[in-house]
Amino acid sequence: MSAARRGLMLVLSSPSGAGKSTMSRRLLAADPAIRVSVSVTTRPPRPGEVDGEHYHFVSQAEFEALIEREHFLEWARVFGNLYGSPRAPVRDAIDAGFDVLFDIDWQGAQQLAQNQFRKEPDADLVSIFLLPPSMQELERRLRARADEPEAVIAARMAKARDEISHFAEYDYVLVNDDADACFRNIQTIVAAERLRRPRQIGLFPLVRALLD
Amino acid sequence: MSAARRGLMLVLSSPSGAGKSTMSRRLLAADPAIRVSVSVTTRPPRPGEVDGEHYHFVSQAEFEALIEREHFLEWARVFGNLYGSPRAPVRDAIDAGFDVLFDIDWQGAQQLAQNQFRKEPDADLVSIFLLPPSMQELERRLRARADEPEAVIAARMAKARDEISHFAEYDYVLVNDDADACFRNIQTIVAAERLRRPRQIGLFPLVRALLD
Repeated sequence: MSAARRGLMLVLSSPSGAGKSTMSRRLLAADPAIRVSVSVTTRPPRPGEVDGEHYHFVSQAEFEALIEREHFLEWARVFGNLYGSPRAPVRDAIDAGFDVLFDIDWQGAQQLAQNQFRKEPDADLVSIFLLPPSMQELERRLRARADEPEAVIAARMAKARDEISHFAEYDYVLVNDDADACFRNIQTIVAAERLRRPRQIGLFPLVRALLD
Repeated sequence: MSAARRGLMLVLSSPSGAGKSTMSRRLLAADPAIRVSVSVTTRPPRPGEVDGEHYHFVSQAEFEALIEREHFLEWARVFGNLYGSPRAPVRDAIDAGFDVLFDIDWQGAQQLAQNQFRKEPDADLVSIFLLPPSMQELERRLRARADEPEAVIAARMAKARDEISHFAEYDYVLVNDDADACFRNIQTIVAAERLRRPRQIGLFPLVRALLD
């Protein structure tokens, strides 16, 4: 049905608590053609987090050396910690026809848009923003997740409002009021984006063979 | 799940015999949110064709008067006959949230791209090109369809090669080697394109309500 294709960079952003991590996990479990970009961070590991799987954990000095060496496609500071997406594994995966999922915020998405591998606008990047059905529901989810001090909840809610204010910079926006429907919509978007002509690198030889 | 949306212009092009008409018919039957753009033509009606349903049939002089009055979103000459898409019904349908299907060739698609209603690039338009699995199969289908003189078959095959040479101007390209799979892919593309942020005109009030 379709010819060989070049992978895409799939950015999934949302305020914390709006379902980004759940959707990412479901997408990776359901679709073997999608790999995740493992971020580098200076944040200390949380209980259960595995170095190289959830994050690459490094010191501040190590992170700064990686910035110097242009190791990152994008990096940003969030709540005083540095986060970055390494360039080489993403390029290799895309060239091999895999899609690469980025679980990043609007700062990262903006930088990725500037640092695509190809010159064509939006050639590599597909960005999806998840909105919560309401701020009350978002706060409820944040409180249900962990027993955190009021100040931390307040800071996360402020960050959520900041994140939401950038919704218009994304290709697709979904309201996550029904997790299953939201997940199906993400899968539909990925399926359609794979059919975009610039990603089907096998088309030119195919058409040449047709017209020969 | 999704807010109010603005409709899109869906262009389906293919060489004659590659499945464009079948796919259009299935799409219109399956999806009540899609309307078809009824073209105006100077070509005489074929047996069974209904004026106002399959085409609006007009004289050459009438067609030229319509061009003068900027009645058309696009028009083109094919095999000596004039074909055009009227502007007003398309704009009305899109404003009302319907999608409008255009069964047109590459000349029409190029003009539509220039005559979108909104300034944003690709805001209104989604274009899909259907490729035949092979030229032999295309010729077989053309011959099976009607008992036509060799010269007509040859002219259609030449037009098909011309049409195929424009595949790279389309957003999506599908090889129609399995009609059901091809149809599902078209439905997937339409479903995803409806989720694009610029088409969801209900998002701004929704986000304003979230952040208020």
